[in-house]
Amino acid sequence: MKSLGIGLIGTGFMGKAHALAFGAARAVMGDMPESHLAVLCDTPVEKAKQMADQFGFAKSTADWTSLISDPDVDIVSITTPNALHFEMAIAAIKAGKHVYCEKPLALTLDQAREMRDATRKAGIKTMVGYNYIKNPAFTHACRLIQGGEIGEIVHFRGCVDEDYQADPALPWTWRAKLADAGLGALGDMGCHLVSMAYGLVGPIDSLIADMQTVHTTRPLPDGTGRAKVENEDTASALVRFANGAQGSLSTSRSAWGRKNRLAWEVHGTKGMICFDQERMNELQLYRNSGDKAQQGFTTILTGPAHPPYGEFCPAPGHQLGFNDLKVIEAAALLRAIRDDSPASPDFEHAYEFEKVIHAIAKSATDGTRVSLSEV
Amino acid sequence: MKSLGIGLIGTGFMGKAHALAFGAARAVMGDMPESHLAVLCDTPVEKAKQMADQFGFAKSTADWTSLISDPDVDIVSITTPNALHFEMAIAAIKAGKHVYCEKPLALTLDQAREMRDATRKAGIKTMVGYNYIKNPAFTHACRLIQGGEIGEIVHFRGCVDEDYQADPALPWTWRAKLADAGLGALGDMGCHLVSMAYGLVGPIDSLIADMQTVHTTRPLPDGTGRAKVENEDTASALVRFANGAQGSLSTSRSAWGRKNRLAWEVHGTKGMICFDQERMNELQLYRNSGDKAQQGFTTILTGPAHPPYGEFCPAPGHQLGFNDLKVIEAAALLRAIRDDSPASPDFEHAYEFEKVIHAIAKSATDGTRVSLSEV
Amino acid sequence: MKSLGIGLIGTGFMGKAHALAFGAARAVMGDMPESHLAVLCDTPVEKAKQMADQFGFAKSTADWTSLISDPDVDIVSITTPNALHFEMAIAAIKAGKHVYCEKPLALTLDQAREMRDATRKAGIKTMVGYNYIKNPAFTHACRLIQGGEIGEIVHFRGCVDEDYQADPALPWTWRAKLADAGLGALGDMGCHLVSMAYGLVGPIDSLIADMQTVHTTRPLPDGTGRAKVENEDTASALVRFANGAQGSLSTSRSAWGRKNRLAWEVHGTKGMICFDQERMNELQLYRNSGDKAQQGFTTILTGPAHPPYGEFCPAPGHQLGFNDLKVIEAAALLRAIRDDSPASPDFEHAYEFEKVIHAIAKSATDGTRVSLSEV
Amino acid sequence: MKSLGIGLIGTGFMGKAHALAFGAARAVMGDMPESHLAVLCDTPVEKAKQMADQFGFAKSTADWTSLISDPDVDIVSITTPNALHFEMAIAAIKAGKHVYCEKPLALTLDQAREMRDATRKAGIKTMVGYNYIKNPAFTHACRLIQGGEIGEIVHFRGCVDEDYQADPALPWTWRAKLADAGLGALGDMGCHLVSMAYGLVGPIDSLIADMQTVHTTRPLPDGTGRAKVENEDTASALVRFANGAQGSLSTSRSAWGRKNRLAWEVHGTKGMICFDQERMNELQLYRNSGDKAQQGFTTILTGPAHPPYGEFCPAPGHQLGFNDLKVIEAAALLRAIRDDSPASPDFEHAYEFEKVIHAIAKSATDGTRVSLSEV
Repeated sequence: MKSLGIGLIGTGFMGKAHALAFGAARAVMGDMPESHLAVLCDTPVEKAKQMADQFGFAKSTADWTSLISDPDVDIVSITTPNALHFEMAIAAIKAGKHVYCEKPLALTLDQAREMRDATRKAGIKTMVGYNYIKNPAFTHACRLIQGGEIGEIVHFRGCVDEDYQADPALPWTWRAKLADAGLGALGDMGCHLVSMAYGLVGPIDSLIADMQTVHTTRPLPDGTGRAKVENEDTASALVRFANGAQGSLSTSRSAWGRKNRLAWEVHGTKGMICFDQERMNELQLYRNSGDKAQQGFTTILTGPAHPPYGEFCPAPGHQLGFNDLKVIEAAALLRAIRDDSPASPDFEHAYEFEKVIHAIAKSATDGTRVSLSEV
Repeated sequence: MKSLGIGLIGTGFMGKAHALAFGAARAVMGDMPESHLAVLCDTPVEKAKQMADQFGFAKSTADWTSLISDPDVDIVSITTPNALHFEMAIAAIKAGKHVYCEKPLALTLDQAREMRDATRKAGIKTMVGYNYIKNPAFTHACRLIQGGEIGEIVHFRGCVDEDYQADPALPWTWRAKLADAGLGALGDMGCHLVSMAYGLVGPIDSLIADMQTVHTTRPLPDGTGRAKVENEDTASALVRFANGAQGSLSTSRSAWGRKNRLAWEVHGTKGMICFDQERMNELQLYRNSGDKAQQGFTTILTGPAHPPYGEFCPAPGHQLGFNDLKVIEAAALLRAIRDDSPASPDFEHAYEFEKVIHAIAKSATDGTRVSLSEV
Repeated sequence: MKSLGIGLIGTGFMGKAHALAFGAARAVMGDMPESHLAVLCDTPVEKAKQMADQFGFAKSTADWTSLISDPDVDIVSITTPNALHFEMAIAAIKAGKHVYCEKPLALTLDQAREMRDATRKAGIKTMVGYNYIKNPAFTHACRLIQGGEIGEIVHFRGCVDEDYQADPALPWTWRAKLADAGLGALGDMGCHLVSMAYGLVGPIDSLIADMQTVHTTRPLPDGTGRAKVENEDTASALVRFANGAQGSLSTSRSAWGRKNRLAWEVHGTKGMICFDQERMNELQLYRNSGDKAQQGFTTILTGPAHPPYGEFCPAPGHQLGFNDLKVIEAAALLRAIRDDSPASPDFEHAYEFEKVIHAIAKSATDGTRVSLSEV
Repeated sequence: MKSLGIGLIGTGFMGKAHALAFGAARAVMGDMPESHLAVLCDTPVEKAKQMADQFGFAKSTADWTSLISDPDVDIVSITTPNALHFEMAIAAIKAGKHVYCEKPLALTLDQAREMRDATRKAGIKTMVGYNYIKNPAFTHACRLIQGGEIGEIVHFRGCVDEDYQADPALPWTWRAKLADAGLGALGDMGCHLVSMAYGLVGPIDSLIADMQTVHTTRPLPDGTGRAKVENEDTASALVRFANGAQGSLSTSRSAWGRKNRLAWEVHGTKGMICFDQERMNELQLYRNSGDKAQQGFTTILTGPAHPPYGEFCPAPGHQLGFNDLKVIEAAALLRAIRDDSPASPDFEHAYEFEKVIHAIAKSATDGTRVSLSEV
């Protein structure tokens, strides 16, 4: 197999994470196809050039269409602002390239559906940046549930909170504009929580929801007044899963003190599992078994017993970090391409996750229960 | 002032807690009217006698009406199963006795309203056993909020979970029967959470909710088959507060591993406060002030700086326990009687709290938003 | 059996705790001999009178010798400053009274030995206020160890820290004077840690130690200058237990932020148990058993499965408080008197605990290993 | 400046960590000299070849002397078993290569001194793998202390525990042999703790110590009997720092449940800072300032306010992992080489850290206080 050429669009938070991930995947995992950092795109071209030098890309460009059409590019990584995903992904798919796209797929569910549909007969692999489900702690939780360790799942509670929009004095940005940013907290964070709920409990059937814009206007950066915040700062939903479980999902970007509190608890008939991304190397497990006097939540610290932790470090409790999750994600895509096996989460999965956040927004707007089958 | 005679009905969990509380209130607080343990009621009479001896009551009876009419009884403590509160409280009020009633007031909101109305011109004091709001950690949180420490309150999340009905193998009891127990998790625990939300954020305007009976039938204790569980194991609500804040309330009696997880977080424009009753001597406070590099949640361990902790112990961090909360509650009632000042939470407050749990049940049943003003 | 009359000397932190404990023991435990609050002693007599009224004692006095000789007093509770324990305890023992003395027994080990010796043929019961070993979490830990749950004990680490002398600006008090206070942190807190180590691992054979007076002088309260701090702010020891285990003990009264951090960990060949008094209702248990992927520290929240928790509250996780430990302690003394059975910890045990803190001080002063058999 | 060629000896835990670190340093940090993965050495040569392919090294060899003499190698990374460090480092220094050596420098202090001395006029840079002091949480703690945030440092407590030798059934390995492994827990882990104590409080003046071999023999892997464990499973020391502070250091490789518990607390006259590597993205800070009722330990979650966290991720609380610490370490070496500025910790610093673990072993053996100036 020839070395897979990576074309990366964007050099921000996620752009750097993708570059690091592709750079490390083979050294970490061993069992990886050859790949190389082929083309980096950003604007202006000077920035693209400088970051290509830093990240180790062979070429740079300010024109993303040329990146996509570059014959040395096999995988197109899209890490641009959400509003740009759609056009870039569609173009890459049409060009027959594999696509690694950051979440959410698109601003609207219609666009996301179109993106998904475009992949269906394209013969390419896709991967979407739902990196938190790549955490060995998360996959271990899923394994525990599938193994029946906590019995039948009956309830789920989850939240995902940060404080990047908590300060009332923060200036207005494009993030507050529906046309540019789409959903607010739901799009930034809520869909991550959905991806975890989906893996732990399964698909959601219907929900009722509410939303809130905490800071309804923000000062314009140029001091000329205030502009409207058009999307939600918080959203909450009461959900019913297809398997009969109920639960709740909440998100806030105005939650002071929360830096990445993507936390959930899964209630089963025999036990409970809890997790908090702010302590991403820990899993809490309660099982109703054995002597009542010894029962309690066990704090499992991830280690080599929780693959692929051991690929990063043979010693337990030494901690993976956020960027390591992206390595696992990139490696999953590279393997899927090499083996022509299913990638996960691909555009199909991402579309299912994102249907839920749009359903939440719809229910919150309409004030009625929304069935996922109708979205 | 003559010594206040306590008449206590019930000797279970709450009965013992009341007995201990009245027994200790004066020694702990100093500034207390005289009181004495006058009459204890339970059935059969032998049990009443034995427990009166244990608890230190002067008299015992199996007839609660005689307790109420006993001239030596000034305060009637009602700690019987919920279905009995109504009749006993009404009788005590009619007899001109002060009433200290465990929550919830009654099985139905109509009964609760009648109880409240009965107190309005009775010239007596009432207190309801919402003991968790007597925690110095809680009153400190309220003080912080009122002092503006975390700015304007914009969001609230709370849950109250236990696992006493989590085991599918547990036999059917009267707790599962609407006519005997009324609401399930909402009545046992949910109302406690409401009492805290109310104190922290204020009254709730409207809500949408969902409920679930996790274990729909349970084995009859006599082995003759299974009977239906008529009330909810879990309930969740998305609420809108009168002050514009939104939030969620959840409760489950099927949450393995949770023993008394009455936990909440209050989101303000300047900070956040969090609490978990399973660590009832701790409060978590985040404030957006000072150097960003030093910000984080501060774990405040209660001590003499958080009255009335110091009445129990002059050394901080030495821990209050559950029964100490009942001492604070009983002392509040005794003071209100002595000073003829408002008691809190009285039947008026309790009625407001309990309106919310009935509104949750109604919304969950009807599937629509319920305004508290319509309940 | 006639009702046991309690004579309590002192009305401070521990005085109140004793009064509350005797007041509640029978109501909590049920299975208790009759007792009554007979005489309270403090100075001046007005204070004694006022506190007797608050605590519910029948009589009051400013003369502790008259308390001891009062025929209605069967048990003498000594909660005065440490320098007074010796004379009072000796007098009480001579008068044939049972003695409940706060720790440490005395300022010097010689005095403690004399107190212990005095009890040997006195035919009375003694109890010493090592209340932390009455915690159901602690007795559960001991049970786990005795049951072999963590294998053979090989190592112990413990500390007991507070911050009541951490502030350099605090004025000089009698606590800083050897003749009045005896040892510093070791006497106030260190002996508590020893009592726990003793129960968990057994007697100590020898040790090497170091001590430190962090704030060597303090301002006189009257502003006339500074006076010397004569006893230790911190002390640390490396110990060897009789069973071959090693470990360390540390204490500091200058540890900012620590309010009652009496924390330890017991290392066994099959597992570990950890505890922290600041979360006194929790025990951490690790066992090397079963699937490695599910191993971790289990947080056991005390409940009715950990006697005598259930006497206070039938619901797990509802939390005991500090004063509840004194109830368990007082009840243990009352039962020992009723049954003429051994009380624990009595003056014999306390002497063993306190030998260790004096050995630590000696080793720290001499700079050499001290064998407990030589102290 | 020409691209710096990396020669890496060893492909185990640390070998992989070095490879990943050099692979990512420039992409993460930007401001980095060019470097490339030149030569990888391991045995047998097939393994070297395979791992060179995985890690991305240009050449491979089974002969470490040829790696050192390779003109394309500028930096020699030594990650072999400790017994081999000495010879390799000396050779590399003689060859004029920069040396990046894992800790501890050598099996004996004499060897370590010789290594340090060899660097003194060699005109090369050295770096030693004390990676935990590269944690942004740690450097922030040092900054807080240097800024006087917790006042004068008066006490230190630290431990470093793992459980990799806790199981009595584990077979005997070379790790148990003095001639091959040197010190036990002290060499593997204790020196890390010393490196942190040194950074936080400064150099140690003298100490008294004790050691213990918990499992004195272990079964031979071939089943032919049992062999002696020659080095320590646990070690503890009471230390006096040059600045007058006292404290304790403890380590155990037999501590069930501890996976990387490198935990310490620094006591100052105005506050305290605590850390635990098992939650390596958190720092606990207590300050005696402001309202007593709001004081408590603040959990600071590292983020861009704690450089160089922001180089890895612009969002706070997203977590660094263990391997990221090695990136920071490798980058520090690369910068020192480029700028011809001091590297830290170099062989000079490492020698100082390692003097302490040898002093601990000496004191534990001799039973007397050891002055660091005499070691």
